[in-house]
Amino acid sequence: MGITEVYRAPEIRDVGIRDDFWSHYIELVKDTMLPYQWEILNDRMPGVELSHAIQNFRIAAGLEEGEFYGEVFQDSDLAKWLEAAAYSLEGEAEPELENVIDEIIDVIAQAQQEDGYLDTYFSIGRKEQEWTNLYECHEMYCAGHMIEAAAAYYKATGKRKLLDVMCRCADNIAEKFGPAPSMPKGYPGHQEIELALVKLYEVTGNEKYISLSRYFLEERGKEPNYFVQEWEGTRNKSTFKTGLPSDPPDLSYNQSHMPVFSQKHAVGHAVRAMYMYAAMADVARITEDKEMFLSCRHLWENVVNRQMYITGAAGSTHTGEAFTFDYDLPNETAYAETCASVGLIFFAHRMQKTDMDGNYGDVIERILYNVILGSMSRDGKHFFYVNPLEVWPEANEKNPDRRHVKPVRQTWFGCACCPPNIARLLTSLGQYIYSYGRDTLFVHLYIAGEAGVKTDSGEYKIRQEGNYPWEEEIKITVHSVPDCACQIALRIPGWCESFEIQSDGKTVAYRMEKGYAYLEKAVAKGGEIRLFLSMPAKLIQANPKVRADAGKAAIQKGPVVYCLEQEDNGENLSAIRLDAKSRLKTVRGIGLPGGIPVVMAKGYRTLEENWEGELYRPYVLREKETDIIAVPYFVWGNRTPGEMQVWIRV
Amino acid sequence: MGITEVYRAPEIRDVGIRDDFWSHYIELVKDTMLPYQWEILNDRMPGVELSHAIQNFRIAAGLEEGEFYGEVFQDSDLAKWLEAAAYSLEGEAEPELENVIDEIIDVIAQAQQEDGYLDTYFSIGRKEQEWTNLYECHEMYCAGHMIEAAAAYYKATGKRKLLDVMCRCADNIAEKFGPAPSMPKGYPGHQEIELALVKLYEVTGNEKYISLSRYFLEERGKEPNYFVQEWEGTRNKSTFKTGLPSDPPDLSYNQSHMPVFSQKHAVGHAVRAMYMYAAMADVARITEDKEMFLSCRHLWENVVNRQMYITGAAGSTHTGEAFTFDYDLPNETAYAETCASVGLIFFAHRMQKTDMDGNYGDVIERILYNVILGSMSRDGKHFFYVNPLEVWPEANEKNPDRRHVKPVRQTWFGCACCPPNIARLLTSLGQYIYSYGRDTLFVHLYIAGEAGVKTDSGEYKIRQEGNYPWEEEIKITVHSVPDCACQIALRIPGWCESFEIQSDGKTVAYRMEKGYAYLEKAVAKGGEIRLFLSMPAKLIQANPKVRADAGKAAIQKGPVVYCLEQEDNGENLSAIRLDAKSRLKTVRGIGLPGGIPVVMAKGYRTLEENWEGELYRPYVLREKETDIIAVPYFVWGNRTPGEMQVWIRV
Repeated sequence: MGITEVYRAPEIRDVGIRDDFWSHYIELVKDTMLPYQWEILNDRMPGVELSHAIQNFRIAAGLEEGEFYGEVFQDSDLAKWLEAAAYSLEGEAEPELENVIDEIIDVIAQAQQEDGYLDTYFSIGRKEQEWTNLYECHEMYCAGHMIEAAAAYYKATGKRKLLDVMCRCADNIAEKFGPAPSMPKGYPGHQEIELALVKLYEVTGNEKYISLSRYFLEERGKEPNYFVQEWEGTRNKSTFKTGLPSDPPDLSYNQSHMPVFSQKHAVGHAVRAMYMYAAMADVARITEDKEMFLSCRHLWENVVNRQMYITGAAGSTHTGEAFTFDYDLPNETAYAETCASVGLIFFAHRMQKTDMDGNYGDVIERILYNVILGSMSRDGKHFFYVNPLEVWPEANEKNPDRRHVKPVRQTWFGCACCPPNIARLLTSLGQYIYSYGRDTLFVHLYIAGEAGVKTDSGEYKIRQEGNYPWEEEIKITVHSVPDCACQIALRIPGWCESFEIQSDGKTVAYRMEKGYAYLEKAVAKGGEIRLFLSMPAKLIQANPKVRADAGKAAIQKGPVVYCLEQEDNGENLSAIRLDAKSRLKTVRGIGLPGGIPVVMAKGYRTLEENWEGELYRPYVLREKETDIIAVPYFVWGNRTPGEMQVWIRV
Repeated sequence: MGITEVYRAPEIRDVGIRDDFWSHYIELVKDTMLPYQWEILNDRMPGVELSHAIQNFRIAAGLEEGEFYGEVFQDSDLAKWLEAAAYSLEGEAEPELENVIDEIIDVIAQAQQEDGYLDTYFSIGRKEQEWTNLYECHEMYCAGHMIEAAAAYYKATGKRKLLDVMCRCADNIAEKFGPAPSMPKGYPGHQEIELALVKLYEVTGNEKYISLSRYFLEERGKEPNYFVQEWEGTRNKSTFKTGLPSDPPDLSYNQSHMPVFSQKHAVGHAVRAMYMYAAMADVARITEDKEMFLSCRHLWENVVNRQMYITGAAGSTHTGEAFTFDYDLPNETAYAETCASVGLIFFAHRMQKTDMDGNYGDVIERILYNVILGSMSRDGKHFFYVNPLEVWPEANEKNPDRRHVKPVRQTWFGCACCPPNIARLLTSLGQYIYSYGRDTLFVHLYIAGEAGVKTDSGEYKIRQEGNYPWEEEIKITVHSVPDCACQIALRIPGWCESFEIQSDGKTVAYRMEKGYAYLEKAVAKGGEIRLFLSMPAKLIQANPKVRADAGKAAIQKGPVVYCLEQEDNGENLSAIRLDAKSRLKTVRGIGLPGGIPVVMAKGYRTLEENWEGELYRPYVLREKETDIIAVPYFVWGNRTPGEMQVWIRV
């Protein structure tokens, strides 16, 4: 499979979202999350774990006295917030927010060292240790996030100050590590800068940055392994946290166990993996490297067809926040970190740029409507870091193996990576809806609003209307098209077994290819396309190799995965068995806000009576009929804390 | 419930086991395990982790130069071996073994300090730290095991040397800790000495030892907490392993979170808990303390009716090797340490001494025929430390949450507690078969052999014959009875739904009470009792509150729990569903040695064909009929390593 065409995404500013479903969440990010997170970054939020992120920059800038506080990657919290805020500004000007950002950019610029180095953990009292511990410390990771922020802020405002700071920072890194014989062959312990450097290349046009990104990817995992050498050199003597001798590096943990070209199975820390795969897809596209693209395909297939939860979550174990192996998807001990799913969206989005296959959009949609929305509360102030598929609050409290799973969203985390990652994803949601190639506009997501998608041959102006994912009809009005033989392609979701496309009241012909319906004749100025996606609630089964889901089914309606909660179904959800022949009835207005439909089904509940306190006895099936009420996974945990279960016995 | 009568167990020497089933295992311990373990303790076994246990004693005795090596509780490995060997000697004289033991006892005596202190970890270069860290170090634990060995060896041989050594050691401890106002109020971080001191009291008659045992139990968990004070005093400055500041003590981990009289739920480290509960039962009996006995009852009920696996294993989490909470019995992440089940037998055996209820014998039997036998290989040289109820070797290798579970028995462990615990249990098995009260001989276990049970009013001489647990008929011949109105009571196992008792060919009347059939008229010299216990293979279900077993059943035949292995049923056992209406057929001579019967059933297997590599798709039940073959849990893992599962979908 070669790279035959590149598909571009429109700018965020060119896609306006006016959607009953998503606008609420995006407003929540803009009006609540970003201001709330800003207060936290400034340590002005009582009752929330101290961030100190901005304080660290002020100390490094010489504006205040003090010690560094926080994780070695604390700087990235501010960077991710800045990136999210920049996307928000690109979508809609906000002079007050822009002023706040300009002020903090001044501080960041002052915190930068003369040689371009920027990392407050080392600048504050640990200068001599710079670059000595790439394996554990996060210098390149933090630089990467700030580069992403700089690129985003430059695109949003045209202001270069942070961009210049981060170009100097990247230049400094390029002077320290690289292919020249005299240079150390280092690369990041936590991948991230690889994809950031691609963005820096795209906004500056400076090929140095794409070369550095490619260098980091190509060098990774080569023999002799840099992290092993680093450890054998000095790092084995002590670790940065305990001062005690450290263990040898775990190479598969950060995907440096073999060259990236040879990697076919997703292993190790899931977020590191996703960021790296995303960068690989970028670099493969830009440098037209078919071999690297092929590695991306292998890794993609492995993740989404072997190691992804039905909600779009990934990472089967808490230990190392990591992938385990094919088909190992335990529900109650899942790690399923929010950031890993954000990273999987990044990966999918980049794959889509060279390989127009509906599968990428399917995965993005699956993640957005399930794990991403589920990870935040409806008030925008509480978040899940871990997104389990099964919750038993007593076990999450009393069984240490399940203690990483929380039955209630938390305000902020000591390791506060997830909330700003959600923020930057949602403020840039516009870029995931459409993309375009030589002669085709692709509609990937069904999110209402207006878009002006500028291509070399002209602009597509279109409007989407509908009430997705709750209504089956999507109306797309084409206001203008480029002056060429062009077509519109609509993603037909993988979950959809029956659909129809009409134009001006008549069924239209289309050509199906890799998950898209291509409408050749329907594209004319003023044309109206109506897409009907049949979306009854359905039972879904997992591949029988997924032992954790054997004998179980999940309920899905359109892209939305459902779950049972104790609030609707009583205590002990494991006692419930769904009747596979039961009609799944979608009902609105029962208990949930905003007209969110619940799904009702018939089933059976094991009787708990007549057990005289004993644990085991001869088998007798004693059940009673019961009504089952399922709610969308993304709303779980917003009522009384209790049990939750996605996979139900059938 | 008060203590109305005390039931005694016969001496080990008075019970001869000649049983087709058990003699093999006991011989294995005597002929293979004990010599094998002795070689390991002497570091003469290549390819096995270094023990150094005897070397530590030789160094402490001044016989060799060197450093201490091993765990802080390394001394107990030798002690447990000695105890096991002593039981073996009590059963059958072995002059060579006795010589070996006398020699090592000389070394132990020389390793003892003048003040009576005995612990090689501290004696070798850490003298100034003695008794400074009761929470983490195991001085009293090691002393306790050596006291048990001393008592056993004295009972077996009449030789006092080790007994005297351990009396001095116990005297030394009694001088250090106790109720006197000037004394520190310490007690063991790992309970064990409490039950050992009871044995020391029983062989010496010295009440000082029962008082010290009672003191340790009474003081435990009182405010102010000793471990908190110890930590606040000096221990917070460093831990004995890392030298780093230590965390505050986890009081529930070692059951010091509240006074033992208030404890109703089993919590914390399972082995610590069991040893403590066993000691409590002893002390309650000897000091006639009804309140303490009531605590024992609560704890017993909690363990066996809320927190015990069907195999008799206990300890639901690897973290802290601990109990979690009621009904939390995950199969694939179970810890289920062998030693915890050995401890549960100790607890049951002691409860039985004041409370003649068949439930104790039921639990002892459940543990013996399942987890204990399952924990050792048929060659007696390989052991499980963790006894899972579900194994998926790939997960045990690649998912860190399940890495504590091994699909293959290991030779010996860095923490080598389990193999000698099995050895001492099996060499003393004779004491668990019978016990007697004022006028009744109780038969708890159906293990063939001859016994001479001496009571105050005379001796019961009886012989058991049969092929339990495979044959339904047990023949008990009464050769002589004491010269009083006496009766024999036979435990009718809790799993047995139908039984018959005959004497001289005629059905006899009996009185059922708390799980025992009391035969008043059948006891006469020369009388022959035939007990028929119906033991068809049955499906067993768990209490519906056990979420891990919802929708599943286990197969049990008599006391033997069965399991599925990959070897008989193919890969992916989770794809198998048992037909609850299927007849369970017991078949001998299929694949297993020694005529061990397998159980065959009908069921269905989910088809894995027609999955084009995807993970999720609309639910369709696609199964084919399949024959299911179950083997006794205790033989699992003796063939090709593969999957194993006790609980099967129905």
